[in-house]
Amino acid sequence: MSDITFFTEHTGIQLQELDPLQDRLEDEIGRISAAWGRGYDTEYASLTLPSDQDLISRVSRLAENKKALDPAMVIVVGIGGSNLGTMAILQALGVGQDIAYFADTVDTPYILRMKEKAEQHLQEGRQVLVVVISKSGSTAETIANAQLFVSLLKKHRTDYNNYMVIISDDHSPLADVAHEHSFSYLAIPKHVGGRYSVFSAVGLFPLAVLGVDIIALREGAQSMKETCTAPDLAHNPAALSAATLYHLYQKEFRIHDTFVLGHSLFGIAQWYRQLMAESIGKEENNQGQKVHVGITPTTSIGSVDLHSVAQLYLAGPNIQSTTFITVANQQDIAVPSDTAFDNVVPMIQNRTFNEIMDAITIGMQKAYIHADRPFMTIELPEISAYHCGQLLQMKMVEIMYLGFLFDINPFNQPQVESYKKETRKILSHE
Amino acid sequence: MSDITFFTEHTGIQLQELDPLQDRLEDEIGRISAAWGRGYDTEYASLTLPSDQDLISRVSRLAENKKALDPAMVIVVGIGGSNLGTMAILQALGVGQDIAYFADTVDTPYILRMKEKAEQHLQEGRQVLVVVISKSGSTAETIANAQLFVSLLKKHRTDYNNYMVIISDDHSPLADVAHEHSFSYLAIPKHVGGRYSVFSAVGLFPLAVLGVDIIALREGAQSMKETCTAPDLAHNPAALSAATLYHLYQKEFRIHDTFVLGHSLFGIAQWYRQLMAESIGKEENNQGQKVHVGITPTTSIGSVDLHSVAQLYLAGPNIQSTTFITVANQQDIAVPSDTAFDNVVPMIQNRTFNEIMDAITIGMQKAYIHADRPFMTIELPEISAYHCGQLLQMKMVEIMYLGFLFDINPFNQPQVESYKKETRKILSHE
Repeated sequence: MSDITFFTEHTGIQLQELDPLQDRLEDEIGRISAAWGRGYDTEYASLTLPSDQDLISRVSRLAENKKALDPAMVIVVGIGGSNLGTMAILQALGVGQDIAYFADTVDTPYILRMKEKAEQHLQEGRQVLVVVISKSGSTAETIANAQLFVSLLKKHRTDYNNYMVIISDDHSPLADVAHEHSFSYLAIPKHVGGRYSVFSAVGLFPLAVLGVDIIALREGAQSMKETCTAPDLAHNPAALSAATLYHLYQKEFRIHDTFVLGHSLFGIAQWYRQLMAESIGKEENNQGQKVHVGITPTTSIGSVDLHSVAQLYLAGPNIQSTTFITVANQQDIAVPSDTAFDNVVPMIQNRTFNEIMDAITIGMQKAYIHADRPFMTIELPEISAYHCGQLLQMKMVEIMYLGFLFDINPFNQPQVESYKKETRKILSHE
Repeated sequence: MSDITFFTEHTGIQLQELDPLQDRLEDEIGRISAAWGRGYDTEYASLTLPSDQDLISRVSRLAENKKALDPAMVIVVGIGGSNLGTMAILQALGVGQDIAYFADTVDTPYILRMKEKAEQHLQEGRQVLVVVISKSGSTAETIANAQLFVSLLKKHRTDYNNYMVIISDDHSPLADVAHEHSFSYLAIPKHVGGRYSVFSAVGLFPLAVLGVDIIALREGAQSMKETCTAPDLAHNPAALSAATLYHLYQKEFRIHDTFVLGHSLFGIAQWYRQLMAESIGKEENNQGQKVHVGITPTTSIGSVDLHSVAQLYLAGPNIQSTTFITVANQQDIAVPSDTAFDNVVPMIQNRTFNEIMDAITIGMQKAYIHADRPFMTIELPEISAYHCGQLLQMKMVEIMYLGFLFDINPFNQPQVESYKKETRKILSHE
């Protein structure tokens, strides 16, 4: 199977300029290579997920079991790292779009519409599966939504616990609830944080229930081991991308745009937005010094956003780098030639949609080059579970390298606690 | 009817610091006041839309006419300024979500799914309305999609032109097509650019067909005249917001996040993203000097993005300002108390969804204050067409003031032409 391809000729950086970063990365590449697939005891635990045979067996067995219930609706209750990867892959593959729902926050109009839809299914005899995902097991929004949807299930089904799945850390209060109430349960390894959990049960279980080929997804992820641990940057896209982003940051490029060509890849851009923001945005470095580093991740969709933000991207302050994500092969549509509009834009006549999109993409990249805006490109041979696995794995390893270069911890999120503490105070004392 | 409220106590700026900007804005406030409602001859033409009685009559008549066809699907063919306002208002109000489709770009998998859905309706005897919107009338993506959907209509309906509506500039090739082929047609005034066109037929017609109260929407917009042309900043939210953003830009705040509380306001954040990026991101100032100014607009949803980007926002480089958009009153849900999860997060028991969301919002804002991150807040009394009209109008006027402060033209988009030129070359010579 062909691999995703990574292009860096338009970053304005010569490869030898990155030599000092290559030297700095050498040990970290060694550590990641050594940790990959070797268990859950280190912070690189997520790299063991794609080759964990026990995990895939447990997930596949439970997924078959729940698919047999033939759910008309699968409600994933979870927020942030608990759902972004699943949403990204479903959207990319065009799978489960009518069945999958994501109860993320305590957003009344949004959740009420979801509840009404679920209630209608239940009243009409169809089944609703509720999957509650929280690593800590104590996320307020997730538990509020879990209470709402389990209450609904109870009202309509005496065997309601058969339609519940809990995914959490073994030591969380949610795991205790699952055991007490005989809800199906899958564990998230202790050292796999939310934003690195897409290849754990967090992503694999809902994806499998909804029909994604999780074997191919894992194979794609695992296939990146060699290339993402190659010692020289020229052959290691994860390390090269990290070094490029770090080098550009030193030159004041404080924003990074993931610009996907086509709506279906937008979820992947949003998944990466969390991964980059939460991993790299840090107040302190590993020595405890206040450094306030971070790259602001933005997300754009082509060609839609050429008609919205491209004016800024091409003309504004030159402080943003871009990674375009393109797809080489997909279905195509010919522009029909029997309509009143045939003479309006002569250049698109006898063309296909993909030809037009490709011309726009190249035209846009030429405009970026002309305006001296640095960019990289990742090309997927096609949108498949395998290539999604490759892309997501490459990006997670890139962020580990990038965290190392910034000398910060890419696995924690200390500031998230700050607003949670304030929120707890308000809810407890009001 | 109560108005939207604008809060600026947490920008870290004393009002008197903005006095020099107030002085600079004085003449521009006078010009906007004089132009508001006074016709379509100036670049402030969009300010005449909400009080144009002829416009509302024409739009309402055509909308009644097309609603009588009882369309099961309304496909809006258009991109950027041609659909972002419509999408924003529909999402905010929760209207037309199952009927409205947006064919924006030549994205094969995305458009094919839409085409299949339309074909199914047509085959089963239901009606599909196709609204083609392009100011220039020559947007490649829009015309390609128009050809696709009109071809589909022709295949299934002999009176297909009855199901077509064209919205364009009177002098565009699309207007000519509409007249030749007896498609229903509505005009966009020459000086109303895409990103300022939500209160023209561009927004009003599809919104009216889908059931939005466009009279209330316009009244909300028009109701902002007095406050958005008040001479002193303290009583003029549009000018105060512009002055604040400009002042922060001078202090290196290069990013502005529109952080909405709840999914339903996300479309409004995305609409503003275009408005700010395309209006303010400029290579040259009004004297033709290369200045490369611009504020990068980002968009976030609460509380979802507290679990994704808040770590960066609170800990990273202090270069981002924020406008939170909150809603005072909406439906509510009580957290049920009959479930296995009742003891997991004690503080949310006997609470409602809105109480939890409010506590999170306040907790988050306290964390922003503690981390010294500047923010403004706009509160909507409720989500209604009237208040959407107020908010969008305030934001458009804010951007006009901001363009004036930057000494750039907020109404043009010269760089967009650069990639279009490259694209044309490729499609014409390949």
